[in-house]
Amino acid sequence: MPCLSIEELRKKLAALFTGAGLGERDTGILVEIILDAESSGRRTHGLIRVRPMLAHLATRGHRPGKWLQEDACSALYDSLGGLGYLTSHACAAKAIELLSKSPFAVVGACGATHTGPIGYFARMLAQKGYIGILFANCSPMAAPFGAKEPVLGTNPITIGLPFEPEPIIVDLATTATTYGECRVAIAEGRMLPQGAALDSRGNQTTDPREALAGGCLLPFAAHKGYALALAVQILSSALTGASAVPEPATDYALSVIALRRDILVRAGRYDSITGNVLRAVKAAAPAVPGEPVLIPGERSAANRQRARREGIEITDQLCEELFGQDPV
Amino acid sequence: MPCLSIEELRKKLAALFTGAGLGERDTGILVEIILDAESSGRRTHGLIRVRPMLAHLATRGHRPGKWLQEDACSALYDSLGGLGYLTSHACAAKAIELLSKSPFAVVGACGATHTGPIGYFARMLAQKGYIGILFANCSPMAAPFGAKEPVLGTNPITIGLPFEPEPIIVDLATTATTYGECRVAIAEGRMLPQGAALDSRGNQTTDPREALAGGCLLPFAAHKGYALALAVQILSSALTGASAVPEPATDYALSVIALRRDILVRAGRYDSITGNVLRAVKAAAPAVPGEPVLIPGERSAANRQRARREGIEITDQLCEELFGQDPV
Repeated sequence: MPCLSIEELRKKLAALFTGAGLGERDTGILVEIILDAESSGRRTHGLIRVRPMLAHLATRGHRPGKWLQEDACSALYDSLGGLGYLTSHACAAKAIELLSKSPFAVVGACGATHTGPIGYFARMLAQKGYIGILFANCSPMAAPFGAKEPVLGTNPITIGLPFEPEPIIVDLATTATTYGECRVAIAEGRMLPQGAALDSRGNQTTDPREALAGGCLLPFAAHKGYALALAVQILSSALTGASAVPEPATDYALSVIALRRDILVRAGRYDSITGNVLRAVKAAAPAVPGEPVLIPGERSAANRQRARREGIEITDQLCEELFGQDPV
Repeated sequence: MPCLSIEELRKKLAALFTGAGLGERDTGILVEIILDAESSGRRTHGLIRVRPMLAHLATRGHRPGKWLQEDACSALYDSLGGLGYLTSHACAAKAIELLSKSPFAVVGACGATHTGPIGYFARMLAQKGYIGILFANCSPMAAPFGAKEPVLGTNPITIGLPFEPEPIIVDLATTATTYGECRVAIAEGRMLPQGAALDSRGNQTTDPREALAGGCLLPFAAHKGYALALAVQILSSALTGASAVPEPATDYALSVIALRRDILVRAGRYDSITGNVLRAVKAAAPAVPGEPVLIPGERSAANRQRARREGIEITDQLCEELFGQDPV
């Protein structure tokens, strides 16, 4: 498998996107998000998304979205069907801008396509010292608890909590598996875990092909995951005025609820208590000796460090698809 | 089993609490919360809490908490060890007050005892048309994912979404079972589900007595529940300046993040999209014919309606403990 350095990949991807007509600034933002997802180990949101994005740019171009509303502590963006990764970035950047003058900010987007690796945008906020709670929907893939047909999206709930040197990033789909994980399972010839999907007749299946061929995903943790998924659906769509149940890649919605960590107590106090929580968690006797408890986001951060050092391995097939016969 | 009307219970409970020295206003608030929990079917937070609260008042009295900080959109309350149910009510009421002038409010409490049925306080906000996201911690009962000793509380995450006639209330412990559910299981001679608890040696157990006798609870949904529980711990303790890992019934923390539903779009638009989401969910083909999908909070609301009509059944033992030999 070819192994490319982050720097090489950055240049090659930038050439692809600028070649497809995307401006230099947007290209820079987009490439960083894709490389971050890939190097975090979140491949479902990394390089495999490049070709669909290039196809999107070829057929639909990229018109920038527009801000429909903005005041001192809130803003609403209409993505106008542009690349969702850039929409999410615009919302996180706007929240950061508002938080320089307001103790909290609510920023939403409607009209988006796939809003990308939401944890990245929570990390943008957390690295500035801000708490972010993000909700994003997508087209129907998941059955509500007690139903056998899809209504809700995979609907991630994402919470970024500032901490040095690495923020805590909680980032979870409210489904037991995801579209991306099904595709990876198919590619690798693996089955899904029990209780993660239904086939087209509404029966439980562990075959990812059946889940994607007219079947659907199930919520994680039964009624609890469903309840969270429904809240995410409303907190994204209703809050931003987007479609209740969007068509594929049409009018997806994202909301960012962000606040300064010193909104109630001094930042130093927040930091010290957070440090005490993390130390207590790390000090807990591990269930498997020698395997210490992980902090959410810790594994991704370690993956990114390794990728910066060692580069990113990509399959021959993906490498050729993206860069042609002789990539290195 | 004796069956008492809500009105009878209200009078009897009020007599108990005022008799224990609690003021009339606080008594009224506390009794409503207890009756609401009991009639919602959430008995772990209902009448069985009355005797411990009376004992608390007998030994520690009730000094009101104090507001440490307050501005146009945020406020911090020190509960000073008072009854946690009243602390949570004070925070929700303060958030409602702030939202009359600000589109957003963050209200926190430190120094609390058991903060009660958090869904009730989310519903207070939602019934006023406000979105509320609430986080509460408690003393260590749950092992982090990958550990075998308790560090985190049962740490509910609660989201209230306004809708007429009944708001949507997502209210879930981030543990696979709770202290209250263990106590009920012991009383009813039932076992816990698999994967919900560890015994004192760190081995899996389904015996609720073992879980409570030096064992601990496990997060729901493995790493996902743990990640949410950790976020709740930080969003309650660090945000409010409370203990990172509180001792039992000491310095528990609660935070309320609340916003107007029209912060980005008109309220009518939020309402209409929310209605469309709910209709789509209700229209989904049920997995079991004749058993339609439920909206989070729907079953509790039906329970409350029935209790208002038919009264509340309580066991002979509880009735005698609370009200003596001849309650009716």
